[in-house]
Amino acid sequence: MTATVHRLKTTTPSLEPMLQLVAGDMAAVNAVILDRMRSDIPLIPELAGHLIAGGGKRMRPMLTLASAQLIGYDGTRHHRLAASVEFIHTATLLHDDVVDGSDLRRGRRTANIIWGNPASVLVGDFLFSRSFELMVEDGSLKVLKILSNASAVIAEGEVNQLTAARRVDLGEDRYLDIIGAKTAALFAAACRIAAVVAERSEAEEMALDAYGRNLGIAFQLVDDAIDYVSDAGTMGKDAGDDFREGKMTLPVILAYARGSAEDRKFWKDAVEGRRAGDADFAHAISLVRQTRAVDDTLARARHYGQRAIDSIAGFADGRAKDAMIEAVEFAVARAY
Amino acid sequence: MTATVHRLKTTTPSLEPMLQLVAGDMAAVNAVILDRMRSDIPLIPELAGHLIAGGGKRMRPMLTLASAQLIGYDGTRHHRLAASVEFIHTATLLHDDVVDGSDLRRGRRTANIIWGNPASVLVGDFLFSRSFELMVEDGSLKVLKILSNASAVIAEGEVNQLTAARRVDLGEDRYLDIIGAKTAALFAAACRIAAVVAERSEAEEMALDAYGRNLGIAFQLVDDAIDYVSDAGTMGKDAGDDFREGKMTLPVILAYARGSAEDRKFWKDAVEGRRAGDADFAHAISLVRQTRAVDDTLARARHYGQRAIDSIAGFADGRAKDAMIEAVEFAVARAY
Repeated sequence: MTATVHRLKTTTPSLEPMLQLVAGDMAAVNAVILDRMRSDIPLIPELAGHLIAGGGKRMRPMLTLASAQLIGYDGTRHHRLAASVEFIHTATLLHDDVVDGSDLRRGRRTANIIWGNPASVLVGDFLFSRSFELMVEDGSLKVLKILSNASAVIAEGEVNQLTAARRVDLGEDRYLDIIGAKTAALFAAACRIAAVVAERSEAEEMALDAYGRNLGIAFQLVDDAIDYVSDAGTMGKDAGDDFREGKMTLPVILAYARGSAEDRKFWKDAVEGRRAGDADFAHAISLVRQTRAVDDTLARARHYGQRAIDSIAGFADGRAKDAMIEAVEFAVARAY
Repeated sequence: MTATVHRLKTTTPSLEPMLQLVAGDMAAVNAVILDRMRSDIPLIPELAGHLIAGGGKRMRPMLTLASAQLIGYDGTRHHRLAASVEFIHTATLLHDDVVDGSDLRRGRRTANIIWGNPASVLVGDFLFSRSFELMVEDGSLKVLKILSNASAVIAEGEVNQLTAARRVDLGEDRYLDIIGAKTAALFAAACRIAAVVAERSEAEEMALDAYGRNLGIAFQLVDDAIDYVSDAGTMGKDAGDDFREGKMTLPVILAYARGSAEDRKFWKDAVEGRRAGDADFAHAISLVRQTRAVDDTLARARHYGQRAIDSIAGFADGRAKDAMIEAVEFAVARAY
């Protein structure tokens, strides 16, 4: 028997097969989410609902659902756990927006702008607690271990990013540590828990973990690149947002590393908040082009995307696998 | 056999017997706390340590340890769980100080003032995640259920308090709901989990839960009263802090309910932030005296204190029980 080798394609990929694959399960997950957002305190469902109903792709629960299909799990435990994963993610977003002082997310006003920072902090805490209640109801200590560890890693990554903020000499390795913790850890856990509820082997668990982790990194790197691609908007995010906030991302790290002394001075000023105008952004775009920083950020993303695809090579071919492969292709193609 | 009836005493009670009772166990808990605060990100132990080492009484872990002694538990599982409870509490304090914009706690500058709100939010999240990791390591789903539920209740109580802020007509019932959730839920859970690890009956669990819950309410009410007792300072808290922040507490609720139309106008102005001067506070003190609002807040506290004591009547007499009774007496006597 000849192995089927899956390589990144060059046609336009879509998230649609994945969305269709999980549509039925996602309706069940959404029901759990709505049920568990409830509270006698009206502000809680109001604020949480703003973000949860606010046009997010439910990427992480989708990964739990798709992974479960990939391995042929036919139970329903993963519905509750997928909701739990989404709650962790939502809590993180609420706190992130407070930490960053953001005013827009996915093109809508953030909860902290509408209801204030205190409410966002506390409702985040509530959702975080609810996510653990959901896991406890499921009753798997292994799932609890994976997700409580992922939560600690995310928080650690956020603090790491905070202490790294506005440091132009951050370096690619530390940056990868940060996004590995902040973004990829929950992607990995979301996929891995499907194998746990299905009681599959450690090897299958780790293959799904690797799929999620590599996809998470690819996803974040493409997000970083999009900020420096002028016709962007794919993610409800405007080009230049990261730049204006002085965010350290891989395009900046590469452009700084490869730049002249003068360029480095420019990036240092930008990251430290002294260059945030339109002309500055235009200059930044020209520097990332000259240094091929965006192209190479996308090349790095493709590297992780390929690893994600290869990590699930051992699972049976079929609709789920095709959808998971195309989801990676979609993730890395978004910036074109 | 005649039942031993424990009634609140009139001599000066102390927390000392409780501190001595748990001293050995507390050393073990402190070792767990120090170990689990560690992180490769230096800001995490630095910020967490500021609060954790900052002169707190470790009241909640102390309750877990004392409860375990009361029921004769001779294992060590409760050390890790007591540390977990303290982490939940510390995370809550970090977020509370951000929510309230506090600058002092226990007479020291708050973490949010020293390191900023973002760091306090994120390190709180980290400690919260760590607390769940500790519970998962212990492995009891029942403990996980109790503590994850307590966490959700705390967060719900905080949001409830936030939406009730500066509402002078809050009422005693809703106020009791708030402190029942914000303060008493974790006191109750801290005591109850001792019975869970010792595998005692549901009745013993609920007796310890009731002890903690009632003590928690008594504790909070006395804290509220202290703010309107001019020679206070017992808790590292200055008289008038609550008043100047426009906080709704039971003395205000009672003085408002019992006051004249003119008094009510004063309290409304105070709670809404238009009267926060020294003369205003002096006037507030005179109003709470006239209406016996502080005396009756303390009478309410004694009611809950007596209930706490009665709830552990069924356990064997001995050093642990004596210490737990005296801890209640100490809690309600602090304002005299």
